Formats: sequence, structure tokens, C-alpha cells
Amino acid sequence: MTRLTYRDATAADLGFIVSLIVEDSVVPTNDEPDRPDHPRYLAALEAIERDPNQRIVIADYEGQPVGTVQLTFIPGINRLGEWRCLVEAVHIVPTHRNLGLGGEMIGWAIEQAKARGCGLVQLTSNKKRVDAHRFYERLGFKKSHEGFKLSLS
Amino acid sequence: MTRLTYRDATAADLGFIVSLIVEDSVVPTNDEPDRPDHPRYLAALEAIERDPNQRIVIADYEGQPVGTVQLTFIPGINRLGEWRCLVEAVHIVPTHRNLGLGGEMIGWAIEQAKARGCGLVQLTSNKKRVDAHRFYERLGFKKSHEGFKLSLS
Repeated sequence: MTRLTYRDATAADLGFIVSLIVEDSVVPTNDEPDRPDHPRYLAALEAIERDPNQRIVIADYEGQPVGTVQLTFIPGINRLGEWRCLVEAVHIVPTHRNLGLGGEMIGWAIEQAKARGCGLVQLTSNKKRVDAHRFYERLGFKKSHEGFKLSLS
Repeated sequence: MTRLTYRDATAADLGFIVSLIVEDSVVPTNDEPDRPDHPRYLAALEAIERDPNQRIVIADYEGQPVGTVQLTFIPGINRLGEWRCLVEAVHIVPTHRNLGLGGEMIGWAIEQAKARGCGLVQLTSNKKRVDAHRFYERLGFKKSHEGFKLSLS
């Protein structure tokens, strides 16, 4: 069953994306959901748009945006030059959680990875998001790695 | 103290890179270290070379290659359009381990991330690599996330 449709995000979607990121964050952010036209948001979106190995998409449900996901396609030498797909910024609006839409969205991301010839899909999830970990394991992901972050700001 | 020098890898380095990846792997690989000119390795290297957000470098020590690291620079919307740097394929040759060269190489990667305006450096490390986890924590990384992988092959 496919209930979601997907389209590349535009500047008009930045308000939706930033609000959703802030609402769904488990760590403090310096985001400004009231300023979706902030030059730094616009510059980031333009950087994504001009990089053929980047996509940020909006998932629509009955004509309304309900989710986001960002994909990065990464060439690598190992495993005979295998490409991998990094999944970031996975969010569903509060009103539409627990309906299976997140699973549908990740399933779509996996299909995009296959279409690009990737041999691996990878993502990290904050250790606080225990429900998300079960979600990814149900989808077939293996919790095989530790995810390390170093903040430079 | 700076003992390593860095240069972007070329096709002539593929034999070194693939041999090192295979030697240092904790999981089975289908790599072919005797065929560094395999079209799939060459295609992967070309994909890295033509993407301005990708680098794979060789670290040289006294004129000899001793390490590799791959960097991916990723624009994102969150945290006011923050860029992040994903570090992959971190390897040092067996003869030169435990000399602090890995720390020097990651320090260099962090400097590249800063030079590109990144606010975050991130990487995943197989849960079996316990020594590597202590290494990254000593360098200031926080083991804040679970790393999920889904093999498509």
C-alpha cells in the first residue's frame, strides 16, 4: 500500500522542514523555525539541489506534507566499488505518527538506493530514540555499528 | 607534531587501498586486491574525483603510503543549514599502528571539516572494534548514536 507521494523540497517547504526538525529533536538546536527564509537555510537547500548525490524530499499524504527524509549517495572503494546511501533527517509530523508512514518512507528510500545501484543503506539514530531503533530493526537494519559525533560548533 | 602528508588518491593507489581494506576488515568482503584495475574500482574512484563533496586521500609517512581516509561533505537543513563531514574508510597499515598516526590522520580530517565550514564530524565503527571506539572517544567524539546498516546485495 502506497499512501505517500514524494517530491524534492523547495524553498517553500523550508518552514515545514525546520518546524518539524525542531519539534522532533532530542537535542538542543539553534534553529529558527520562524525564519525559514534565513540565508543559511536557503544556502543549504541550494547546496543540496546542485549536488546530484544529494536529495531532500517531502512526503505528502492526501496533499499535505507529513514527512521529510534526506538521502546522500556515496561512492566508495570497498566491496568492489560499492555505493552506499546515507539516510538523514527522517521525520514524520506528530499527527501522522504510528500509522506506518515512516516505514513506508524508509521503504521508498531503500528503493531509491537500489535504483542508484547502492549495496548498502546506512543511518544513525540517537541512543535516546529507543522506539526508532526497534522501527529500523523491524525494517531489516542491523544495529552493527556505534555512531560517533564530534561537534565543531 | 605532523609526520603524515596527504594527497588525493589516484588509480595508482587502488592496489594499496584495496589491500589495506581487505587486511583491516572485520566482515567478509568480495574485494579483489589482486585486481586494483577492476572497472568497478576505477569507476568508484572516478565518482569520488568528480564529486566536489568527496575526497579519498592517502596519508604518506617518510614517502610511503601508510593510511587512507574518505571524507564526504554533506549539506543539511538542521542547525541553521549546518554542513557535516562523514568520515569513512579509516585504515592504517599494520606495520604503522599504535604510533599515533591514526590520531594524526583523524585530526587532519577534522581540520578539513572545519575548513569546509562543517559544524559536525561523524562516523560509524563496527561494534566489534572496541579499541577503535576508545580511540575516537580519546579524540573527543561522543558515542551518542546507534549505527544501522541494511545490506542490499
